[in-house]
Amino acid sequence: MSAPNAAYTQLCSLLRDAAHLGAVSSLISWDQETYMPPSGASGRADQSSILAGIVHERQTSPKIAELLAACEQDADLTKPGSATAANLREIRRDYELATKLPKELVEELAKAGSMAQQVWKEAREKSDFALFAPHLERMFLLTRRKAECLGVPRGGELYDALIDEYEPNTPAAEIEKVFTPLRARLSELLKRVQADGNPPSEKPLLLKFEPEVQHALGLFVLEKMGFDLKAGRLDTTTHPFCSGMGPGDVRLTTRYRGEKWTDALYGTLHEMGHGLYEQGLPKDSHFGEPLGASVSLGIHESQSRMWENFVGRGKPFWKWLIPHARKILGKRIDRYDVKDYFFAANTARPSLIRVEADEATYNLHVMLRFEIERGLLRGDIKVRDVPAEWNRRVKEFLGLDVPDDRRGCLQDVHWSFGLIGYFPTYTLGNLYAAQMWEKINKDLPDLTKDIGKGKFGALKAWLNTNIHAHGRRYSAAELCKRATGSELSSEPLLRHLSAKIKTVYGV
Amino acid sequence: MSAPNAAYTQLCSLLRDAAHLGAVSSLISWDQETYMPPSGASGRADQSSILAGIVHERQTSPKIAELLAACEQDADLTKPGSATAANLREIRRDYELATKLPKELVEELAKAGSMAQQVWKEAREKSDFALFAPHLERMFLLTRRKAECLGVPRGGELYDALIDEYEPNTPAAEIEKVFTPLRARLSELLKRVQADGNPPSEKPLLLKFEPEVQHALGLFVLEKMGFDLKAGRLDTTTHPFCSGMGPGDVRLTTRYRGEKWTDALYGTLHEMGHGLYEQGLPKDSHFGEPLGASVSLGIHESQSRMWENFVGRGKPFWKWLIPHARKILGKRIDRYDVKDYFFAANTARPSLIRVEADEATYNLHVMLRFEIERGLLRGDIKVRDVPAEWNRRVKEFLGLDVPDDRRGCLQDVHWSFGLIGYFPTYTLGNLYAAQMWEKINKDLPDLTKDIGKGKFGALKAWLNTNIHAHGRRYSAAELCKRATGSELSSEPLLRHLSAKIKTVYGV
Repeated sequence: MSAPNAAYTQLCSLLRDAAHLGAVSSLISWDQETYMPPSGASGRADQSSILAGIVHERQTSPKIAELLAACEQDADLTKPGSATAANLREIRRDYELATKLPKELVEELAKAGSMAQQVWKEAREKSDFALFAPHLERMFLLTRRKAECLGVPRGGELYDALIDEYEPNTPAAEIEKVFTPLRARLSELLKRVQADGNPPSEKPLLLKFEPEVQHALGLFVLEKMGFDLKAGRLDTTTHPFCSGMGPGDVRLTTRYRGEKWTDALYGTLHEMGHGLYEQGLPKDSHFGEPLGASVSLGIHESQSRMWENFVGRGKPFWKWLIPHARKILGKRIDRYDVKDYFFAANTARPSLIRVEADEATYNLHVMLRFEIERGLLRGDIKVRDVPAEWNRRVKEFLGLDVPDDRRGCLQDVHWSFGLIGYFPTYTLGNLYAAQMWEKINKDLPDLTKDIGKGKFGALKAWLNTNIHAHGRRYSAAELCKRATGSELSSEPLLRHLSAKIKTVYGV
Repeated sequence: MSAPNAAYTQLCSLLRDAAHLGAVSSLISWDQETYMPPSGASGRADQSSILAGIVHERQTSPKIAELLAACEQDADLTKPGSATAANLREIRRDYELATKLPKELVEELAKAGSMAQQVWKEAREKSDFALFAPHLERMFLLTRRKAECLGVPRGGELYDALIDEYEPNTPAAEIEKVFTPLRARLSELLKRVQADGNPPSEKPLLLKFEPEVQHALGLFVLEKMGFDLKAGRLDTTTHPFCSGMGPGDVRLTTRYRGEKWTDALYGTLHEMGHGLYEQGLPKDSHFGEPLGASVSLGIHESQSRMWENFVGRGKPFWKWLIPHARKILGKRIDRYDVKDYFFAANTARPSLIRVEADEATYNLHVMLRFEIERGLLRGDIKVRDVPAEWNRRVKEFLGLDVPDDRRGCLQDVHWSFGLIGYFPTYTLGNLYAAQMWEKINKDLPDLTKDIGKGKFGALKAWLNTNIHAHGRRYSAAELCKRATGSELSSEPLLRHLSAKIKTVYGV
């Protein structure tokens, strides 16, 4: 790294302060979900909004523009391929994104989104799409304006500008190229499963355990997998999440209310994947800078999916876990064996609700949303036709009839507050994870054996070195290529799912 | 209240925003003591300091001065005796206090205090006053500069300017007038106890209970006494505290590590007293304004001492508590009866450590500190003579020999980070509490009977109406006079302690 000049140092220092305020923002949100007494809600809303305003003001301050421009004139700092050049490229990107949206539009989006979310709740409860439709219309109208302000990348479409916020430099057309073959072959795979598959029993997952012992199991697994509990926590919330609050403080949450005891366990593993990424980012030296931040939602999701699905739903994991689970959860665990648990954790069955979908069918849920939100932005699909478009695809992709909009196009909160372009990152995460997993197994030939013995150190070190340590130095696509040797493809995920289904369903 | 004009409304709104940021500051401090993982400490220090800077900037902004000056010109707003006039008077006071100290001095005090606190820890451990002396010298030097900047009230002394920060409008000379007779008569009382008293057994307080059941008992008592747990919490920390974080959110902490199980219970009652004050302040309509804030540390302490000592160490409290404690803590409670617990909770025995002192001797610890810090500021006492001055007073006030400085003048953290003028508020709290307690018992003749039945509503309502609801509308002295009918005197506390000692010790 080039010797930093004064402007660069000051720029990083301003960004670090803004990031610290962002960390405080995250903390007060975490507190709201975990320990805040209910009557604190209204004051907390004010506090969040005041802090958000301060953070935005700092991120968009003219001082940043001035220092950034000075740094961009410096030949040392901008030397191609250097860490400082990457940092400056991404700081420029963030600054442009933050300053491109007029304040009025941001406020209008926030206000309309807050109202739409309220109406969505009611509409979902009543399964009444007509109630929600005008709000959805408005959110897409405002979001289209937002995309126009952000600017459509050359040769791209409006939707690209929205995706770019969550998954930089990943246009819809490229996503389509990966999604299309995936969809066809996943559907085919599922048809085979349904026609000739031998479905495993889910009973092993239905054992009942007290939340306290489940929590103890979660903490045990976190510690063994290398999540640093001196620099993190595990708590309970309505919806599981991971929040990286700044250096040395990454908080995970899960819930112990699912029908299956493994819901909490897999929730913990999923959030831990996010958490290991956050703990692995070089925050000591680069907190607040792009070099110390995660590269994209897709890569973030790849980390959570890897630990949840590729590690946690594998047979070696169950082989290792069971004797420990027996000590923590009790003798009831003995009712089933490794194969029973492994099979039960790997069912593949089309269902209506995305968040309850299994590893194989989950991506089909994502793809239908990708098509519909893209169509809405292009104007190929009208808001009033969303239920019909939704239901047609559920039939086509998953073979199911949607009984009502509650279990159809009203199930997700995302669109109601303007999260458009976000859904594809879920499947991108699965694809990245599968591709990394193949490379990791090549690089670490003993991995299966290691996991069976509860040794996760080499896997974590691989992720630390090849993914986490880079922050935003490379784009997600470049990072994928550097780490795995090839461009993103749907083949590894398909190979993984086919093999799993062959083992579990015998087809 | 007069119809507010635009400047007044804007002024209150700016103050409210600053107070919300102050509430966030409190929350992140609370989190640091309760749930923050250890590795988060360094980032948290940065976050606290950035936030403190923003709050200070907002409190001292020229906009506040401008709006305040405009309001002070408004005859309606400044109508004598009106709520708005009181608000403006106190806003002016806060603004002057916040702007009087040069930034360099504030930073120097923070830096010197942080270093002095580190050295104090080591010095206390080694019982080595010489190690700490140069830092104490420096802290008093800087604090004298601070007092000079704040300005000595007419006819007063430097020390007054420091007290004023914690207990407004309460000069040392007035404190002395109340403390002097109190000291003489307390010493006399103690001599009688030691010569002829029949000391009660402390065994009932030494029963062992698990932290979980103690916590359950604490929550039970909080709920019964009227602390709103929907607008507050109880957690565990190394040092108990109460933090009012803003509207609808008041958090208490206690600890379950004391030798006596009642340490945690009385800790909870003490913090709850503070908490009921915070919950009783009119924050809905006046959050961020002086009208929505507590009037002084002495009055705050009176609320905690009232519930801890006047309610919690009374016989009716024990009569009510025991059957409930039995249900929560178990049958072991039956080993002793109401009188045993009541007597055990009311020992009066001179000891060396302030924070472990009982209700009767506590004030003597405070008074010796008051004399020494006042002497240091006046120049009557030199830093090098502090141990001798301390030990002489411990002998005179408490009849004890100080074996080492660890148990003498090095025991408190306060001076090391510049908390000078703070100690007297502890005893002022006891005095205010006693005086209110006499008046409350006159106003509520059934109080003793009510407490014996677990009915605390009338007491809480009295405090809400006569103390909490006023915020900073009146000074502490005025509030005392309005609520109790007379000026602060040491007589009520002496009557209370004499009666208690007569009952318990028979002298």
